[in-house]
Amino acid sequence: MKNNQFAIRPTNFDTQIKELQDIHFLTSNNEMITDPIDLFKDFLRISFLEANSKAVFEQKLSSYMATPTQNALEYLNSNNELSVESFYNIALQLLKFNPDVDFSFEDPLGAMKKIQLNISDHEGVVFTLNELKSAWYYLLATHNKNGQTFIDSLAARGYFTPFYGDVGEPLLFNGKTMPVFDPHKTIREVVYVESPQDTDNDGKLDLLKAEILRPYESNSGLKVPSLYTASPYNQGTNDETGEKVMHNVNIPLERKEPNNLSYDDIKYVAPQKKLPNKRTVNSHAEVADETFSREQSYTLNDYFLARGFAIVYAAGIGTKDSDGIRTTGDPQETTSTVSIIEWLAGNRRAFTNKSDNIEIKAWWSNKHIAMTGRSYLGTLATAAATSGVKGLKTVISEAAISSWYDYYRDGGLVIAPGGFPGEDADVLAEETLSRRLQPGDFYKIQPFWDKKLQEITDKQDRASGNYNTFWDARNYHKNFKNIKADVLMVHGLNDWNVKPRNVERLWNGIRNNGVIQKIILHQGQHIYINAFRSIDYTDIINLWLTHELLDIDNQAEKIIPDVIIQDNVQPETWNKYSDWSNKDNQKIKYNLSDDKLSISAPTNETLTFSDQLNSDLFDRYKNHNDTWQHDLVDISNNNMTHNRLLFTTNNIEETVIDGIVKINLNVASSEDLGMLSFQLIDYGLSKRLKVSPTLLSKNGLAGTFDWREDDLREFELGEPTDYKMITKGHVNLQNRDNAYRVNDLEPNTFYPLSVELQPTFYRVPKDHKLGLIIYSTDFGMTVRGNKDIKYSIQTGESNIVVPIHSDTII
Amino acid sequence: MKNNQFAIRPTNFDTQIKELQDIHFLTSNNEMITDPIDLFKDFLRISFLEANSKAVFEQKLSSYMATPTQNALEYLNSNNELSVESFYNIALQLLKFNPDVDFSFEDPLGAMKKIQLNISDHEGVVFTLNELKSAWYYLLATHNKNGQTFIDSLAARGYFTPFYGDVGEPLLFNGKTMPVFDPHKTIREVVYVESPQDTDNDGKLDLLKAEILRPYESNSGLKVPSLYTASPYNQGTNDETGEKVMHNVNIPLERKEPNNLSYDDIKYVAPQKKLPNKRTVNSHAEVADETFSREQSYTLNDYFLARGFAIVYAAGIGTKDSDGIRTTGDPQETTSTVSIIEWLAGNRRAFTNKSDNIEIKAWWSNKHIAMTGRSYLGTLATAAATSGVKGLKTVISEAAISSWYDYYRDGGLVIAPGGFPGEDADVLAEETLSRRLQPGDFYKIQPFWDKKLQEITDKQDRASGNYNTFWDARNYHKNFKNIKADVLMVHGLNDWNVKPRNVERLWNGIRNNGVIQKIILHQGQHIYINAFRSIDYTDIINLWLTHELLDIDNQAEKIIPDVIIQDNVQPETWNKYSDWSNKDNQKIKYNLSDDKLSISAPTNETLTFSDQLNSDLFDRYKNHNDTWQHDLVDISNNNMTHNRLLFTTNNIEETVIDGIVKINLNVASSEDLGMLSFQLIDYGLSKRLKVSPTLLSKNGLAGTFDWREDDLREFELGEPTDYKMITKGHVNLQNRDNAYRVNDLEPNTFYPLSVELQPTFYRVPKDHKLGLIIYSTDFGMTVRGNKDIKYSIQTGESNIVVPIHSDTII
Repeated sequence: MKNNQFAIRPTNFDTQIKELQDIHFLTSNNEMITDPIDLFKDFLRISFLEANSKAVFEQKLSSYMATPTQNALEYLNSNNELSVESFYNIALQLLKFNPDVDFSFEDPLGAMKKIQLNISDHEGVVFTLNELKSAWYYLLATHNKNGQTFIDSLAARGYFTPFYGDVGEPLLFNGKTMPVFDPHKTIREVVYVESPQDTDNDGKLDLLKAEILRPYESNSGLKVPSLYTASPYNQGTNDETGEKVMHNVNIPLERKEPNNLSYDDIKYVAPQKKLPNKRTVNSHAEVADETFSREQSYTLNDYFLARGFAIVYAAGIGTKDSDGIRTTGDPQETTSTVSIIEWLAGNRRAFTNKSDNIEIKAWWSNKHIAMTGRSYLGTLATAAATSGVKGLKTVISEAAISSWYDYYRDGGLVIAPGGFPGEDADVLAEETLSRRLQPGDFYKIQPFWDKKLQEITDKQDRASGNYNTFWDARNYHKNFKNIKADVLMVHGLNDWNVKPRNVERLWNGIRNNGVIQKIILHQGQHIYINAFRSIDYTDIINLWLTHELLDIDNQAEKIIPDVIIQDNVQPETWNKYSDWSNKDNQKIKYNLSDDKLSISAPTNETLTFSDQLNSDLFDRYKNHNDTWQHDLVDISNNNMTHNRLLFTTNNIEETVIDGIVKINLNVASSEDLGMLSFQLIDYGLSKRLKVSPTLLSKNGLAGTFDWREDDLREFELGEPTDYKMITKGHVNLQNRDNAYRVNDLEPNTFYPLSVELQPTFYRVPKDHKLGLIIYSTDFGMTVRGNKDIKYSIQTGESNIVVPIHSDTII
Repeated sequence: MKNNQFAIRPTNFDTQIKELQDIHFLTSNNEMITDPIDLFKDFLRISFLEANSKAVFEQKLSSYMATPTQNALEYLNSNNELSVESFYNIALQLLKFNPDVDFSFEDPLGAMKKIQLNISDHEGVVFTLNELKSAWYYLLATHNKNGQTFIDSLAARGYFTPFYGDVGEPLLFNGKTMPVFDPHKTIREVVYVESPQDTDNDGKLDLLKAEILRPYESNSGLKVPSLYTASPYNQGTNDETGEKVMHNVNIPLERKEPNNLSYDDIKYVAPQKKLPNKRTVNSHAEVADETFSREQSYTLNDYFLARGFAIVYAAGIGTKDSDGIRTTGDPQETTSTVSIIEWLAGNRRAFTNKSDNIEIKAWWSNKHIAMTGRSYLGTLATAAATSGVKGLKTVISEAAISSWYDYYRDGGLVIAPGGFPGEDADVLAEETLSRRLQPGDFYKIQPFWDKKLQEITDKQDRASGNYNTFWDARNYHKNFKNIKADVLMVHGLNDWNVKPRNVERLWNGIRNNGVIQKIILHQGQHIYINAFRSIDYTDIINLWLTHELLDIDNQAEKIIPDVIIQDNVQPETWNKYSDWSNKDNQKIKYNLSDDKLSISAPTNETLTFSDQLNSDLFDRYKNHNDTWQHDLVDISNNNMTHNRLLFTTNNIEETVIDGIVKINLNVASSEDLGMLSFQLIDYGLSKRLKVSPTLLSKNGLAGTFDWREDDLREFELGEPTDYKMITKGHVNLQNRDNAYRVNDLEPNTFYPLSVELQPTFYRVPKDHKLGLIIYSTDFGMTVRGNKDIKYSIQTGESNIVVPIHSDTII
């Protein structure tokens, strides 16, 4: 196995000593020790937290081997010098590596290198006293086999519980905060933030519930930063009523009336609305009126709670206990999201309840706020950043939407998020309207909500699939220029729910903002990665937030690579790069000829396929999208042979695709309407990473002792497969100019067309083939009409342009 | 949806009042109230734990509806009487039922009946004061939509935290213990129990590590009962070295030399061994030397920890920190398991560490012990019970092995536990030898272990598959007569890992022991069921253990049905019966003729099938056991047509199979060896329960506030399927008398043969067909030789005898 640690901060010796003192590994007692053997023994004694007697300590010590034939007790009692090899033999066991599997007592250093573990500097084959201190320092910062640094694994065993109640400020080790705040003494309070809008039209400014968890010590002077997660889901969801408004996707594509719209014609302009007056403050309170028990927590936040951060959850307008209605990502939702930050930063009012008008301030806040969360949660973090709101220092946007059109639409088509055909903005609004879960509250707004939901349904305009004013209001790109917060992006290169275009546009959209931007791209789908063994994601975020929110100069900006990308070929491999999807990347143009992708001159042919399937097959594919996907791509399967065009290269040299693949076609439809879909495929028998991570250890990760746990996971190689889809794209043939203007389409007339596929980063191994599949109905994402439409391509005018990664791994 | 609650104790009014006082719902303040409206409001106030002001309370109250048009605040403020309907409208919301899905405000009582919720007695349409108290009492004992009683859901929100530190004894409500002990103050200590054997042959009696968690209050006088889980896995496992000793199953069946053995020839007799002396006690301690941080916990135990029970984990001989070696279920392992009980009951010594000889007693123990755990853990509970050890009041044996021959063998064949072809007693021994995880300790025993492991490999005798002395030593049936503990059994009717024969023999084997025996059979595989929504399993166990370990007369013996079986047709349906697999059950005999199972006279035919497949198909089935199983059973698939005999009934009336299906055959093999396999199938297109439960709510179940959580799950119906396997069986044609005696087998000669399939309880719906498949190689369980062997059956002499459930649901 291999570890990939990006968040170890290089530390000078004096700082190492100070930090070892701070965390009580160096004490007034053992600083007197001059013999490395004795000091090492004392370090081990301190770290064997379970032993309360000499006998138990020695019993534990003798359970480790120091050499191939001597256990650690025997070794330390019989040697005058501490060999580097014996140190690392014991260290590997402390890190839970297994001599039957991971290393040999004959060559611990070889294993350390192979696993990619830090070997501390040493002049000779034995450690000097100072070398030992330094080696112990770095050992504490090194990840074990279970996805944690050694110091964090000690924390999980209770190392820091003696610090509880005895610290006035965050405790740092190697640039990262340690869990010295008792999570069971957490203060939990609810406040109601008054937002500057009235989205449920009740004549009062919307009050928004915020749930706050903060360290007990913040009651007595400690000012703490906030991790704020805006989650429309976390007060509950309406799965059944949401299901009821799902749309039927088994309908034909409709012809659209051509128009000549310009962007200004559809541009969203915020309406001027007269606002109700602010509430009159009756009095002030320092203590909240309302508490809560089990928040719907985000595991990354759980980790930080014991480390001196406040955690704030708010679900926003239209959710349980808040006012307002759901709008699925429009500027009102951004205002709702931002209101909480404004309160945390001291720039907005909140009340202890919804009726008494007693104001309560975030008097414990250090006014530095970060936003966390995945998917819709990360989306709202991005949205908030585009407001430029004061106090928001950074957002960690995981698998986030950056334009809702790129979530529910593409190229003038309704394109479902993967796995959710029929979902749309209205469905999501209904699902997240958790005010419905409180029937007494919902009763008041039901008629207004029914009307507003219908408005969303109408304006999202499934009939055309066009970009319109509704979607322009939900496009955060327009306000990227306002982003002042540093942004750390995380996205799955196999995320077909929130597709990679969303993160690519954010990555490339803020290059000139002057903020720090970092990105981590993994091989997962729509998941979070803070419990993976092979990358120290949690440590990275710790280093990052310690830097951003505690004003600590821990070099996070330099240490964390700008771009980290998980390799799709080698497991447990995360590479550093200087950029992703740079528009200046070199390109390879492949022409289409016969069934080949070729860099030679194209042939002039007209190739045709039909979209229609026999009804049995159509029905089977409707119910089994996986079977359809397999039959579409699998060369040896004949079911889809006449319903697609398939072009492949010859075997190629290793090629790393980096960015947006573009397809240029001359295409005709047999009807006056049409749509095309595209998939880029890696063909070649190989073991590939499985689609979903493997559970390595249920509840295997705890941020501190006796506290919430996460499941340790890792991507593993599966059985060999013949192919893998790299990326895909879709376009309506009536949206050849852009997604808002509708072009005419004469039957059997050829038109030029350019399409951008979803951005990617993909290593095609040597001797594989690159394949392009052109088809129409995408059973997982488009409508499915099974109409008798034929599509023709003129190969002479058609090609595919592939951006190539030229940078080396850094 | 439907709830099934078996653990609500009928309670007289005076006791209701006392218990409401005990849990502080009736207080000196509200006992003065005479108006049901006011008292109900106060009950609600007490249960709205999050509200610390009148304003917040009223805000919460107004979020409930009391009638189709009035919220609860309006209703309670404007009415003089409390209508039963309004009470239950609010109650249903308190129980998290959803008016959009589960009920209507027009008819709450109809919904209560449909969901199977308790409606309290009431004379009229409004509640009197006493009726209200009683209704509130039963409401607290009623399960909500999230698989918890209302009082337990309040506990999870913090209801009992004010009781922490303020109770001297367990607090009971409705016959069950409440979580009034602060789990974060738990005392965690390690002791080393001296067992009366020396299994690693080091000249010293084996010391066995036990991890104890007990309430803080047990330090100051509270004597607590123990839930003891013996888990060979819980100190870690050797997955990789275990994998290395897995056996190849792609080998042919071998002919066995006939013999004429009697049981006495193979009977296990315990060897007489001279034991090392007991250790000399140097001194005594009351406080342990060693602690631990995160035990590998069992979620059911987590639930009980806050309720005043000590939890004890021990992994036994050969595991990390203990002495000894692994033996996979032999009497030495039973002795190891029992030693911990003897210590808890005050009848054996333990030490604070392995070298100082300082004795420590379980001075906090009330000497009442129960064993819990699933699979190997439940197996050791059963094993311990067969020792008749003092102090062991009850075992909850979940998915437990009752004879290791029934786990790894059947009818003179090696039969793998489902999903683990190639595993055997030696593999399990190696996997659980967690002393290997401490290289310094393992180094001392490696040569001895290598020798012992080889002995297990030899003696388990995969070559013959016979029952022999090795297996006789691991057959707990022999000592069923010694069982004095009450036994609560839990098993999955679809558990093909630990097959149902194991529990059936235990159920029928202790009928005359004079102990209480209960059984719960569910539709799952090899899983635990303490987090299912539709049955109150945790409450049942609470009632049971409160009765068994706290000597509380809570009627558990009468209230808990003797037999609870989850229905295989209707979801969320658990029926009570008086017995299972009673040998006197009525039988239906089906004769075999042509391809029919028929109660008419049989035809006289000879039917033949071949075991051999073409090598492509053989290879595919080897790697894809699911495909093989599908092709074997599916009538419309032709791949296996010549490799099986398939007999089906005509469409039948609803039939409930209850017990052991027996097959009688006249059979010949074309060779001088042979094996047969059998599957009984339910044919008929139906929605059936999915194989694995659906996750309803991750971390949705907490036993108390701020404590460990479990995932709420439920079996749901899947898409319609054509068939389902009911049960199966296997036999070696050379073991026609029994599993230890080898019969001769002449090629092409017919022999009579009787085989018992795995016991079951299965409802075959009306108009389905019952099917019997006779085949040879079972790709999931037997060896796979692909030899050219043909098997013939004479139908005139062959039949299948099916036991029928005649009892009605009680």
